[in-house]
Amino acid sequence: MSQDLAQQIAKRAADAAHAVATLSEQEKNAVLQKMANAIRAHKDEILKVNETDMKTGKEKGLSDAMMDRLHLTEERVEGMATAIEEIIDLKDPVGDSYLLEERPNGLKIEKMRIPLGVICMIYEARPNVTADAGALCFKSGNAVILRCGREAIESSKAIADALHEALEQSGLPKDVITVVPTPDREVMTELLQQKDYIDLVIPRGGEGLIHFVSDTSKIPVIQHYKGVCHLYVDKDADLDKALAILLNGKTQRTGVCNALEGLLVHQDIADKFLPMAAKALAEKDVTIHACNKSVGYFDGADEISVDDFGQEYLALEIAVRTVDDFDGALEHIKRFGSGHTEVIVTENDQTAKRFIREVDSAVTMANASSRFSDGGQLGLGAEIGISTSKLHAYGPMGLQALTTEKFVVTGNGQIRD
Amino acid sequence: MSQDLAQQIAKRAADAAHAVATLSEQEKNAVLQKMANAIRAHKDEILKVNETDMKTGKEKGLSDAMMDRLHLTEERVEGMATAIEEIIDLKDPVGDSYLLEERPNGLKIEKMRIPLGVICMIYEARPNVTADAGALCFKSGNAVILRCGREAIESSKAIADALHEALEQSGLPKDVITVVPTPDREVMTELLQQKDYIDLVIPRGGEGLIHFVSDTSKIPVIQHYKGVCHLYVDKDADLDKALAILLNGKTQRTGVCNALEGLLVHQDIADKFLPMAAKALAEKDVTIHACNKSVGYFDGADEISVDDFGQEYLALEIAVRTVDDFDGALEHIKRFGSGHTEVIVTENDQTAKRFIREVDSAVTMANASSRFSDGGQLGLGAEIGISTSKLHAYGPMGLQALTTEKFVVTGNGQIRD
Repeated sequence: MSQDLAQQIAKRAADAAHAVATLSEQEKNAVLQKMANAIRAHKDEILKVNETDMKTGKEKGLSDAMMDRLHLTEERVEGMATAIEEIIDLKDPVGDSYLLEERPNGLKIEKMRIPLGVICMIYEARPNVTADAGALCFKSGNAVILRCGREAIESSKAIADALHEALEQSGLPKDVITVVPTPDREVMTELLQQKDYIDLVIPRGGEGLIHFVSDTSKIPVIQHYKGVCHLYVDKDADLDKALAILLNGKTQRTGVCNALEGLLVHQDIADKFLPMAAKALAEKDVTIHACNKSVGYFDGADEISVDDFGQEYLALEIAVRTVDDFDGALEHIKRFGSGHTEVIVTENDQTAKRFIREVDSAVTMANASSRFSDGGQLGLGAEIGISTSKLHAYGPMGLQALTTEKFVVTGNGQIRD
Repeated sequence: MSQDLAQQIAKRAADAAHAVATLSEQEKNAVLQKMANAIRAHKDEILKVNETDMKTGKEKGLSDAMMDRLHLTEERVEGMATAIEEIIDLKDPVGDSYLLEERPNGLKIEKMRIPLGVICMIYEARPNVTADAGALCFKSGNAVILRCGREAIESSKAIADALHEALEQSGLPKDVITVVPTPDREVMTELLQQKDYIDLVIPRGGEGLIHFVSDTSKIPVIQHYKGVCHLYVDKDADLDKALAILLNGKTQRTGVCNALEGLLVHQDIADKFLPMAAKALAEKDVTIHACNKSVGYFDGADEISVDDFGQEYLALEIAVRTVDDFDGALEHIKRFGSGHTEVIVTENDQTAKRFIREVDSAVTMANASSRFSDGGQLGLGAEIGISTSKLHAYGPMGLQALTTEKFVVTGNGQIRD
């Protein structure tokens, strides 16, 4: 049963993918505008159904954070419509091509961007992902299968109804955007076996969900486990800049994957910088976990050993370590970084360049806050997720990460000797 | 035991990957030249050990084709060394960067090419893959784990000994290139679970091997199942070009994945083209399987029904179908193509463009032979494999497909509001 349902959903999406793959940007934008309009037109139904989800969520004792993610208001529904309109403004990458080479035999070799095909999003309680991911996948010429958690499923279906109305008005099959009608884990497991029909799986949620999906899937999975981001303050740093970047990274917003979780300080400037850091972090009530060389600079800091580094606090807490030199910082990041975002503050261009080249993370920064590490801030427009694994996409994923390239060969009758 | 060995191999490769990731192109080229020299210097040992593999292969009753792939001669060993020298001439993509955007807040956003990390190649009887893949992965800054079949394992180890000599002379860890010392399937299975250490798996071999690897692996796998390539002769085709491309695609070499397996002919030119094709194919002793509309043009052709299309013959055989129109050709390719290579012959630019845009395959061609669909002919230099799945790489994979891109952000102290 689960297997039949999963296969049917996947197969229909794969058939529908061809219908959207060859639409022009103009055609896709017209449909997206209809989607935004339909979301607005169906606002009342969406809000009503969301009340049901909220009631069930309350009965099940969802956490406050979870309830907040689930909750839709008039403003948030309008926000979904506006987000779709912002996707209209993003440039469609499909069809972009560039010349690789003109061969000695006269063959012209180009590469051309094409959609991936069918994308499966797996997420938990956020109903707005249904609209966002639906619109992003559509704009990039893909069909999408949306599998949301039990908590948000009725809201997601109501949102999908609005999107389907827009598809039907445009003469497109509604299988271009499918909400999996049941939260059963078995159906999800079977979906993850449909490698003949689905091209990519993007899970968004807790580490448990992501491990489950990537262990179960026979389809490639974009992995985004966690963000353990470091700031390294070099001996040649401008310490005022370093302090501002430290405070911004740690305290501007704490529950996010691009917040700072570790501070590394070159020993030559520890005597100057750590007292500044101690004062500023204390004012923001940040709890300090520090190595034996750093701990003395902080009031009430907790001394930790090397094995205790690498925590993702997602709170007003930070780990501090004094390192011998640049290489010590690199070693620390290599061992404890999560491949998300790493920052150096230095006025020395050579040191900055070496850091950028040698540090292995999706985003490497010099003299800027880790909080800029998201699709919007990097200029990608809306992002569908962040990849901390390297295959296909590494870092924030915008429209282009939902496409791939094929080879195009043009000749005038060439054959091979 | 298998698990320990697999994890140890993977972990060591991951550690060694950092040593090669940050080498300059010049440094890598110097090591590659040492590798080529070492292969030449160890020619006698390699040939001697290959005799052992050949003897064992003979006792086990390997097919002639398999024995031929396994067999090394003086010339073939020299060919391995030369192939490494050709890789020296390929441009290193690592470190290439380009500007994405300058943000209103002054942040400069770039993308920079970096190695993937650790690549695991799984192959059968070809010992030369050990040298080729070892050198390609090295040039692109990756560590590589080479798992070859039982047949070729002693030859592969001897080749790896030569490569290791070059690594050691250069002060690099030999774990940069590892030949798995045992052909046990259990060890391979355990290797395919090491997703914390290995970034990409590339299987090369029969469909059975590739299915086993992609079903077993928790690491992303580049899939290359088969090549069912079509030639579509449009109503506006130059029929002489079409005939030359047909013969070249079907008969220049048959046992390869870029050979033609299907001919589609627009009904308006069937009366002219099919008799030409029938005569030329008969001269080359090509067996014809044809639809009911085409079968009459061929002597001794075998009539087949729609469900019989889509075979990968890898022999002097071809399936022929007369289609109503362009859309009929597209429908056929959508149903029976394998995502490898599809060719149109037409003098009509609009039709060629539509074909190139709408056909979903890794390589789409207008007016050229499908036999050009390989890395060397497309100008990539040596290829490590061909991907017929879309994620990360689609089509022939050269050095660039062994790398990924990270984001680089440069500021002068910017923080987020």
